[in-house]
Amino acid sequence: MCKTAGCCQGCLHYAFDYETPKTLVIPNIRVGCVFRFTQLLVVLYVVGYVCVVQKAYQETDSLISTVTTKVKGFAFTNTSDIGPHLWDVAEYVIPPQGDNSFFVLTNMVVTPEQTESRCPELPNPLTTCVDDCDCIEGHSDPRGNGIQTGLCENYSTTVKTCEVLSWCPLEIDTKLPEPALLSAAENFTVLIKNSITYPKFNFQRRNILPHINSSYLKRCEFNRATDPDCPIFRLKHIVSEAGEEFQDMAVKGGILGILIDWSCDLDWWAKKCYPTYSFRRLDNKHPVNNVAPGYNFRFAKFYKKPDGEETRMLIKAYGIRFNVIVFGTAGKFGIVPTIVNLGAALSFLSLVPVVADWFMLTCSRKKDLYSKEKVTYLTEGTESMPMATSYGTQ
Amino acid sequence: MCKTAGCCQGCLHYAFDYETPKTLVIPNIRVGCVFRFTQLLVVLYVVGYVCVVQKAYQETDSLISTVTTKVKGFAFTNTSDIGPHLWDVAEYVIPPQGDNSFFVLTNMVVTPEQTESRCPELPNPLTTCVDDCDCIEGHSDPRGNGIQTGLCENYSTTVKTCEVLSWCPLEIDTKLPEPALLSAAENFTVLIKNSITYPKFNFQRRNILPHINSSYLKRCEFNRATDPDCPIFRLKHIVSEAGEEFQDMAVKGGILGILIDWSCDLDWWAKKCYPTYSFRRLDNKHPVNNVAPGYNFRFAKFYKKPDGEETRMLIKAYGIRFNVIVFGTAGKFGIVPTIVNLGAALSFLSLVPVVADWFMLTCSRKKDLYSKEKVTYLTEGTESMPMATSYGTQ
Amino acid sequence: MCKTAGCCQGCLHYAFDYETPKTLVIPNIRVGCVFRFTQLLVVLYVVGYVCVVQKAYQETDSLISTVTTKVKGFAFTNTSDIGPHLWDVAEYVIPPQGDNSFFVLTNMVVTPEQTESRCPELPNPLTTCVDDCDCIEGHSDPRGNGIQTGLCENYSTTVKTCEVLSWCPLEIDTKLPEPALLSAAENFTVLIKNSITYPKFNFQRRNILPHINSSYLKRCEFNRATDPDCPIFRLKHIVSEAGEEFQDMAVKGGILGILIDWSCDLDWWAKKCYPTYSFRRLDNKHPVNNVAPGYNFRFAKFYKKPDGEETRMLIKAYGIRFNVIVFGTAGKFGIVPTIVNLGAALSFLSLVPVVADWFMLTCSRKKDLYSKEKVTYLTEGTESMPMATSYGTQ
Repeated sequence: MCKTAGCCQGCLHYAFDYETPKTLVIPNIRVGCVFRFTQLLVVLYVVGYVCVVQKAYQETDSLISTVTTKVKGFAFTNTSDIGPHLWDVAEYVIPPQGDNSFFVLTNMVVTPEQTESRCPELPNPLTTCVDDCDCIEGHSDPRGNGIQTGLCENYSTTVKTCEVLSWCPLEIDTKLPEPALLSAAENFTVLIKNSITYPKFNFQRRNILPHINSSYLKRCEFNRATDPDCPIFRLKHIVSEAGEEFQDMAVKGGILGILIDWSCDLDWWAKKCYPTYSFRRLDNKHPVNNVAPGYNFRFAKFYKKPDGEETRMLIKAYGIRFNVIVFGTAGKFGIVPTIVNLGAALSFLSLVPVVADWFMLTCSRKKDLYSKEKVTYLTEGTESMPMATSYGTQ
Repeated sequence: MCKTAGCCQGCLHYAFDYETPKTLVIPNIRVGCVFRFTQLLVVLYVVGYVCVVQKAYQETDSLISTVTTKVKGFAFTNTSDIGPHLWDVAEYVIPPQGDNSFFVLTNMVVTPEQTESRCPELPNPLTTCVDDCDCIEGHSDPRGNGIQTGLCENYSTTVKTCEVLSWCPLEIDTKLPEPALLSAAENFTVLIKNSITYPKFNFQRRNILPHINSSYLKRCEFNRATDPDCPIFRLKHIVSEAGEEFQDMAVKGGILGILIDWSCDLDWWAKKCYPTYSFRRLDNKHPVNNVAPGYNFRFAKFYKKPDGEETRMLIKAYGIRFNVIVFGTAGKFGIVPTIVNLGAALSFLSLVPVVADWFMLTCSRKKDLYSKEKVTYLTEGTESMPMATSYGTQ
Repeated sequence: MCKTAGCCQGCLHYAFDYETPKTLVIPNIRVGCVFRFTQLLVVLYVVGYVCVVQKAYQETDSLISTVTTKVKGFAFTNTSDIGPHLWDVAEYVIPPQGDNSFFVLTNMVVTPEQTESRCPELPNPLTTCVDDCDCIEGHSDPRGNGIQTGLCENYSTTVKTCEVLSWCPLEIDTKLPEPALLSAAENFTVLIKNSITYPKFNFQRRNILPHINSSYLKRCEFNRATDPDCPIFRLKHIVSEAGEEFQDMAVKGGILGILIDWSCDLDWWAKKCYPTYSFRRLDNKHPVNNVAPGYNFRFAKFYKKPDGEETRMLIKAYGIRFNVIVFGTAGKFGIVPTIVNLGAALSFLSLVPVVADWFMLTCSRKKDLYSKEKVTYLTEGTESMPMATSYGTQ
């Protein structure tokens, strides 16, 4: 029965006949209003919230950042340990390279002229002794200062402690200079140069904005109100913007974040891309459960005496580590997120008739009529005839 | 024909008449079951997989992290090169600042008392010579040790090599101390302080958890089973958790990652945000195709002799670089991802009737009846009359 | 009237009766073509653009990277300041650890034998003086070099400047050696070892690819055309690929990014994951509004004289900071993004009948017939009878 031509035609019909639902138009203004109002809500959500507020039509990218920092300033100190001393950048900025994390020395405990030798331990319950039997030769406590020689020596006229092999004299870091040694550091300034790239959008920017000229840069200083674009920051200002007191922080040290937010909208109708600076203390200040509060580390300068003996100056350096943290997300119109969000919105639009149908068939006065006209109830066995007469479409 | 009032009314009708598809209700329990079961599958996917497993209703954010590290411990060595020596933090941690990447010296080749002078090259096929003609004055091989002076000198009693202008004596790094010089480094401990911020959610945390007190911190040591929250790690423990042997690794050095995972669910019904530590060796251990296995670098300590001549001690430092890598993603309920995922799910729900229709019109026993009732075939030209009688809706 | 059995049956009917829209099949090839063509467009978008081009079916992850670098090479200089000097890695790479950011010294201003003492300031409008009244004791200008003693001294035979307490002699950094002191640095090589991990996919790779053997690594040098996989880079080559001239850049320094792109498609049907190297200058070269162009920092080497006096050699180091920036995104088939994108596409498919209906009811020749057959207009009050006869489905 299926001749080739007929078969082809059948296929064609199958492929190209257009099947469309039969519809019923109901001239009820209340149902219509419910329908249009629900549609309006969905459209408002899509246009208003998704597009305008959330910018969900945008693709996003993370940034690649380069930072250089340059501190300026010097301080003069006169202490018994090291005598009069002029501190400049080459000494108080560690490491000197000016990376995105730099440390400014503000306070320290210096133990000069240490040599490898033997000396009695600092007194504490574990190191005090009465005679040599209390000290074990070769024993080393990780929280002590060296390897015990097995002898019990006079630490002072009243206390005897175990002798240790160590760099002597031992460091005594209990008396921290207060106010901080380099309290003048509050007037140091730091120039931060920051270039960013959004690789996906091939977009580059730097924090020295185009309208800034060299003469301005020579004299400006960042101030949120008057000079918000100047990339030169006074350390005291940074610390106080973070809600801290510089002189307090200088004594025991701490970590301070300089946050540069480069969140950008790169669409041509909103090409805004400027850095926003904020400052925040990153370590905990007065926590109840803290070990080693503040920020410090030890380093040594090694010297050789004329007789070849090595001596060192041990420095326990307290200070403020500044971390320049650059972050941000750029958004730009992207076809995929747009389509995905439009698609989701369309799905919700396809829910609207469900709402309107439910309203029509339960809340409107003529719901029985509408139901009869809209819904055909197929009674099996009777080929729907009896029902059709009662509430079919006829 | 279009009077103003009538026109307006027409427009109103156009805008507010509600058009709804006519439907046919089929009281077939099998078709109904297929329909409801398919719906159930989609809903299960949405609720179960998308919401519970994938948490696709959440917005996500990446973290900003600050790390400070502090190593404790000392080691005593007695070698022919440098004599008895006590190593403390100020010497074996490089750089000393306690950043998120720190290096612990475990082994080294020391070349003391180098001065700028002339000496015969280390023997290898390129540097051995018979007489001065084999050496080119001014030639410098990047893989050699200096600039050739053009002379051929006795390196030992049996070998002659080209003389070079360099820091002499040259470093001989073929005999690496084994076991490692600072094998005692396995007992060093490191305190890691880590604060994180999720800027989008304004959420801050640190790895010293609220329930930890100072006295616990003074004596605790990280152990996955007994002390999982202690931020003090013994180096040997870190290395063994990474599946390595400390003493093996100490000889040639290596890079070890301390990974802190801060993946967080910040919704109020699941406010879980704790750090999870894991450890992994980051360089390749026994690769067939490796150059410079392990981890080492060279640095020098410079001294000035009383006569003003500069000498240096060259140190080829082998050791373990610990990289504290902090990562994680925080998720929090967000309206846009929720809507997008619900929308996608709704789209699939709108596919369900297609499945049920297909089942009804091909697999059910009364498919001819259903087809006749559901589908009206419009025959063009005859105004659909003949077809309507055979399988129209009437 | 609602007996329990009947009620249950009612509920069952309510839950399992299947309601399906009545449809009208229109054998119009033009309408069918519009319908199928629009469907085709949507499907093409989904398959072609979303899947193939944008790979929107993939989940993505960011990488964790470890970098070690090792510079090789040496240079010989002979200047009046420091005499003949051989520079090797231990001196010109700062810091020496071989992290992902390393600095190669190319030029410098050396101020040897500085001691803390008094000397006249460098002349500039602010420091020149006529007599002691022009100098304020204790005054320190952050842009000056020390703390004024209040005296006015002869700087040269013609100029008098205020005396300052500082490290003397003061550094004079106006005469920068040109060509750069270590111009030979262009022939240094750097080996970059880079391991990456995509934690979400538990995928690890390193930039020394499996097919590379040790003997190749000993002699190879990166070249985009001939050796694109060799991880050893000649500094001159890096700089010239970034579009710069090494000798120009060496004089004042700069920052150079070595970008390693690890963008990967981790699906099994496309397992491509190789690093791609690119190079870019990261600081600004000739900007109109720049402070401190190039890249430099100061550091000092401290010495102790036999009499205990501390002297230092101040070095203002110019050079190129190389930042190895590793970035990339890995994508892998993920069920959630797939479902979301399919859902969005389905939403658009559900728009297709709207388009086809609109075409059918406005553009086709038999639009009146189709309209009559498809749409029933319910006239309220008359129970739709009169309309039904005129253009109902009957």
